[in-house]
Amino acid sequence: MYSFTNDYNETAHPKLLESLLSQTKQKNSGYGLDDYCQLATQQIRTLTDSPKSAVHFLPGGTITNLTFISHVLRPYQAVIAASTGHIAVHETGAIEATGHKVITVEGVDAKLTPELIKPILDEHCDEHMVQPKMVYISNTTELGTIYSKQELQRLYQFCQQHNLYLYLDGARLAMALTAEANDLTFKDLAQLTDAFYIGGTKVGAFAGEALVINNLNLNQDFRFTMKQKGAMMAKSWILGLQFLTLLQDDLYLQLGAHSNKMAKTLQTIFTEHGFTFNIPPKTNQLFVNIPNGLIDDIMQNYCVYSFGQPDSEHTCLRFCTAWSTTQDDINKFQTYFKKLIQK
Amino acid sequence: MYSFTNDYNETAHPKLLESLLSQTKQKNSGYGLDDYCQLATQQIRTLTDSPKSAVHFLPGGTITNLTFISHVLRPYQAVIAASTGHIAVHETGAIEATGHKVITVEGVDAKLTPELIKPILDEHCDEHMVQPKMVYISNTTELGTIYSKQELQRLYQFCQQHNLYLYLDGARLAMALTAEANDLTFKDLAQLTDAFYIGGTKVGAFAGEALVINNLNLNQDFRFTMKQKGAMMAKSWILGLQFLTLLQDDLYLQLGAHSNKMAKTLQTIFTEHGFTFNIPPKTNQLFVNIPNGLIDDIMQNYCVYSFGQPDSEHTCLRFCTAWSTTQDDINKFQTYFKKLIQK
Amino acid sequence: MYSFTNDYNETAHPKLLESLLSQTKQKNSGYGLDDYCQLATQQIRTLTDSPKSAVHFLPGGTITNLTFISHVLRPYQAVIAASTGHIAVHETGAIEATGHKVITVEGVDAKLTPELIKPILDEHCDEHMVQPKMVYISNTTELGTIYSKQELQRLYQFCQQHNLYLYLDGARLAMALTAEANDLTFKDLAQLTDAFYIGGTKVGAFAGEALVINNLNLNQDFRFTMKQKGAMMAKSWILGLQFLTLLQDDLYLQLGAHSNKMAKTLQTIFTEHGFTFNIPPKTNQLFVNIPNGLIDDIMQNYCVYSFGQPDSEHTCLRFCTAWSTTQDDINKFQTYFKKLIQK
Amino acid sequence: MYSFTNDYNETAHPKLLESLLSQTKQKNSGYGLDDYCQLATQQIRTLTDSPKSAVHFLPGGTITNLTFISHVLRPYQAVIAASTGHIAVHETGAIEATGHKVITVEGVDAKLTPELIKPILDEHCDEHMVQPKMVYISNTTELGTIYSKQELQRLYQFCQQHNLYLYLDGARLAMALTAEANDLTFKDLAQLTDAFYIGGTKVGAFAGEALVINNLNLNQDFRFTMKQKGAMMAKSWILGLQFLTLLQDDLYLQLGAHSNKMAKTLQTIFTEHGFTFNIPPKTNQLFVNIPNGLIDDIMQNYCVYSFGQPDSEHTCLRFCTAWSTTQDDINKFQTYFKKLIQK
Repeated sequence: MYSFTNDYNETAHPKLLESLLSQTKQKNSGYGLDDYCQLATQQIRTLTDSPKSAVHFLPGGTITNLTFISHVLRPYQAVIAASTGHIAVHETGAIEATGHKVITVEGVDAKLTPELIKPILDEHCDEHMVQPKMVYISNTTELGTIYSKQELQRLYQFCQQHNLYLYLDGARLAMALTAEANDLTFKDLAQLTDAFYIGGTKVGAFAGEALVINNLNLNQDFRFTMKQKGAMMAKSWILGLQFLTLLQDDLYLQLGAHSNKMAKTLQTIFTEHGFTFNIPPKTNQLFVNIPNGLIDDIMQNYCVYSFGQPDSEHTCLRFCTAWSTTQDDINKFQTYFKKLIQK
Repeated sequence: MYSFTNDYNETAHPKLLESLLSQTKQKNSGYGLDDYCQLATQQIRTLTDSPKSAVHFLPGGTITNLTFISHVLRPYQAVIAASTGHIAVHETGAIEATGHKVITVEGVDAKLTPELIKPILDEHCDEHMVQPKMVYISNTTELGTIYSKQELQRLYQFCQQHNLYLYLDGARLAMALTAEANDLTFKDLAQLTDAFYIGGTKVGAFAGEALVINNLNLNQDFRFTMKQKGAMMAKSWILGLQFLTLLQDDLYLQLGAHSNKMAKTLQTIFTEHGFTFNIPPKTNQLFVNIPNGLIDDIMQNYCVYSFGQPDSEHTCLRFCTAWSTTQDDINKFQTYFKKLIQK
Repeated sequence: MYSFTNDYNETAHPKLLESLLSQTKQKNSGYGLDDYCQLATQQIRTLTDSPKSAVHFLPGGTITNLTFISHVLRPYQAVIAASTGHIAVHETGAIEATGHKVITVEGVDAKLTPELIKPILDEHCDEHMVQPKMVYISNTTELGTIYSKQELQRLYQFCQQHNLYLYLDGARLAMALTAEANDLTFKDLAQLTDAFYIGGTKVGAFAGEALVINNLNLNQDFRFTMKQKGAMMAKSWILGLQFLTLLQDDLYLQLGAHSNKMAKTLQTIFTEHGFTFNIPPKTNQLFVNIPNGLIDDIMQNYCVYSFGQPDSEHTCLRFCTAWSTTQDDINKFQTYFKKLIQK
Repeated sequence: MYSFTNDYNETAHPKLLESLLSQTKQKNSGYGLDDYCQLATQQIRTLTDSPKSAVHFLPGGTITNLTFISHVLRPYQAVIAASTGHIAVHETGAIEATGHKVITVEGVDAKLTPELIKPILDEHCDEHMVQPKMVYISNTTELGTIYSKQELQRLYQFCQQHNLYLYLDGARLAMALTAEANDLTFKDLAQLTDAFYIGGTKVGAFAGEALVINNLNLNQDFRFTMKQKGAMMAKSWILGLQFLTLLQDDLYLQLGAHSNKMAKTLQTIFTEHGFTFNIPPKTNQLFVNIPNGLIDDIMQNYCVYSFGQPDSEHTCLRFCTAWSTTQDDINKFQTYFKKLIQK
């Protein structure tokens, strides 16, 4: 059964496998002190035009979020997130487990704005309440939407004015930076956030996220926290090497663009048949409103996630494309879908 | 300047001072292993008709909440609270600091119902999300409303059916149990909660809350957690002695009833002049909607908390009466208020 | 049965009871923002000749230690303590519960020296180990010994040279500062520590410790952590008022001196009969080596703690005197003891 | 420069690379719910003859330790470890960061015995101290020594009698189970521990440890804690697949045996020249006492760790062999070493 469940259900892009094979028999230093991590760091500094940014390679998104956020916040400080934010919903209380409240607010298309954050600051006025200190956003968001450059600029400016750190979760950053509507660059991210991570797991890596810390005050002793949280892999060079390969010749962005393109062709199929979307499609996640009567058939033929019922007659299914989705996969779905509709 | 700010701005009821003086020169065992704590425990077991309940005396509400909740929950479990709940808002992230998420839902008059909790359980369906395991309620609520016996019965039954613990914060329990509309008793609380605490700080004690654990599975090794969190006072007998005195001859409930009565007379003054309340007055907290033009004058003459603006022309002020409020205090306010209105 | 168990088995010194009674009917601001806390703060600043030191009043020793230490340390930092240190042994892992390792080293008479700490610093050389950042000492120590001015100077100088904070637990500070061999003053403590606390619970208070933070960098946002840990009492003025009374006319030091004097007279009784001490007696705790044959009789007539067996023929008993011990109590013991010896 | 630094400085054994390549283009379920993790689980259950044991795949040793230990212990409970134990020394306070004290005792050749643990239990007698609840051992130990079957039996029996969990860190389990003196089997480990992990990172895997929980009470909701700590990899099948390959045809034990054999030949070289060892060599780590005059030369030609000075004339160097060490590597060292000695 073909899966549109997510963008991390195949092992790794062939070029990453190749690079891994190419360096066997080679001895490397452990814990991120190897040449590949160093080279990948340089590459990221070049890409972001941010020669002083610190770069660390961690094995997954949740552990990157919890390690960085718990490193930065003082015990009584909290992080603000959209109510759909990954740290707020799908990390089993990982941030709270490090001692910090996640303050949530309903976002606009899963995004935060100064207007949404300001009331939280106003409300948290004294020592009887936690002290908001960081803003967590995702790009793409958990619903596949993206931040424009102007939106990010406004948000970062607001954060700086209010003594808040801005941290961007880039689990699907490749898809965000290659979306049709996107006008952000790696360079912008280095200038408009205190830290962000470049997600590998969902863009063709075995595993791995590259955390880029632009505000160097937040980097002090970070390796201690990495080690403490179990986020410092003995063979970190495998992570470094993957990013080195991913970021060479724009492979990373190409994979993101491909994911988006596959989603776009899928979107057309749905649109042609008059289907609507629960969230405006922007990247590689489609939240399609499907008449209830078709759900069983689809779910018997394709792996997809259900996202509840927008109204009594429809169910929202998420179709997620990936770097590994092919035009042939889409064509097969189209054939299946046409038959289904005509039944 | 007279204060209606809160119900804990005077030191202690004279009878508690007397009892304290009466036992000077007496040597006591430390850490709650003394005779007074033992006697107060027996008294509470009699009052609640729950001879096996465990009773512990802690120095304040926040520390009682964080000690009990962190003792009971496993690392990945969460507590559900109304969005107005004290642990959710006014304890500076104390629960999160022990590693647990507080899941909030907007209450009905600050109260929780099975209907409000059920969707939370439905949503938290797998290991990518925290596991809801406890329901936290307050009686009186933070807005002065109270639970009826039927409401508590429904809630507890729901909790038991869904494998949730029910914990009741009784910081103002005396006011709840003596409210006009109340039909709950101490005995009901022992039968309809896994644990609750009898608040002393807001009902005439120096300090101190009596935690009553009815579900003895939750009591195992509790004294270890008490000691660890700094909640086990060396001279715990001072807490035990206060509760012994408070619970003798119904003093505790009399003080609650008096607080409510003073609020009722104050309420009449506002009602007579056509003022409305942001929350229906039930106990010793009045949330009065005051025309903006009067606010400055009132706040120059009385200490009260402001609770925001219900509409553009009014500000909501909280008037909180206490065991120590006198009819004379109310009369003086009445005199002041009539003059103010006639200006 | 008379108790030499500890120095906190009577409620409070009469002058503290008086001061408490004197201010009934008075309304106070909550959470330490009242006049008494302010006045006691000023008094402490004068005593310590440290006009800028921050002062906070907390309800007990364990909660003072855990609140301050967890406030100061970053997640990966550790505190160094003697292996007899209260935080290392008798606080049920309170410091670890806030996330921090307590590194222990066997002290000299329960005291730390630069020579003992240096190897710990040398050993903790990289991010695979915790980062030592604070030194915790007690004065008197848990074994009743005291620091000389020179010892404290050396230790503080060492800490400053090595970027470590020095924190002094003064649960029995009154006894330390009035010991025969003492040459430290309150003023010295303000100059030779980053923070220390003046213990009330063991020196005649109901409860309460006054935390004095001399290094103001460590004070930032401290009230947030106090509230979060449940260490900020609603009626904090009761703590402030007690310290105001204790520190007036040198009562605090008088009570310490009295405790020591009672121990000295007790010591003479033991010495006269040829008994030895496991730890050289310096303050109000005597660790007496008693022939095993006498133990049962003593423990049937007096409450004391046993501290194990220094050799196969002796058991070490701790006799702890207090502000409330009288010459008559000692005389009675002497009568009892002479009879016992002559049996 | 050749490295004897550690056993995890090459990427992965060729067979693991092959297996990884073989399954490209295949879609897998995420988070350990895939076929490979299921197959590897079955294989481990067969190997250990423990059909009900739960098996989880985690990305590294530190995160396995902190996830399991924090899952099992209640907040006030502690884990006992040898003072050389990895969790006690080299995980940057990872266990304390989850709230638990690590109680250390000096081991015998880095191993624990009932005789070493009993005094800890006796000492921890009430709620003023943490409650010891788990014993942590490593096999091989951090110093390369191993447990005999009888030693493990005695330890486990003691643990069961005293209500302690026994957890074995098997980072180098392959080397332990193939040591000359070893008489333990996988089956024994399932019967003589509550849980243990089969280390992959140091035995030819990219990354990954297989946690085997034999006491199923400790497995309840474990996946929640895995997710919360960031220990549940999206592409967990990569870990499952590696273990499937490692455990096929005894590859895992062969790699351990090879590591030991290379150490043995290295040992002979040192012994022949009259060098001694700081710890009796048992597995793939040699702690060689080297005259100080030779240290610089060796460290300019080989990467090795220094382990301090056993006496004023010698320095202890650790030579660690690996699955990837070849006889040729040893021969080259021999040639180098002979020349060095003859200088």
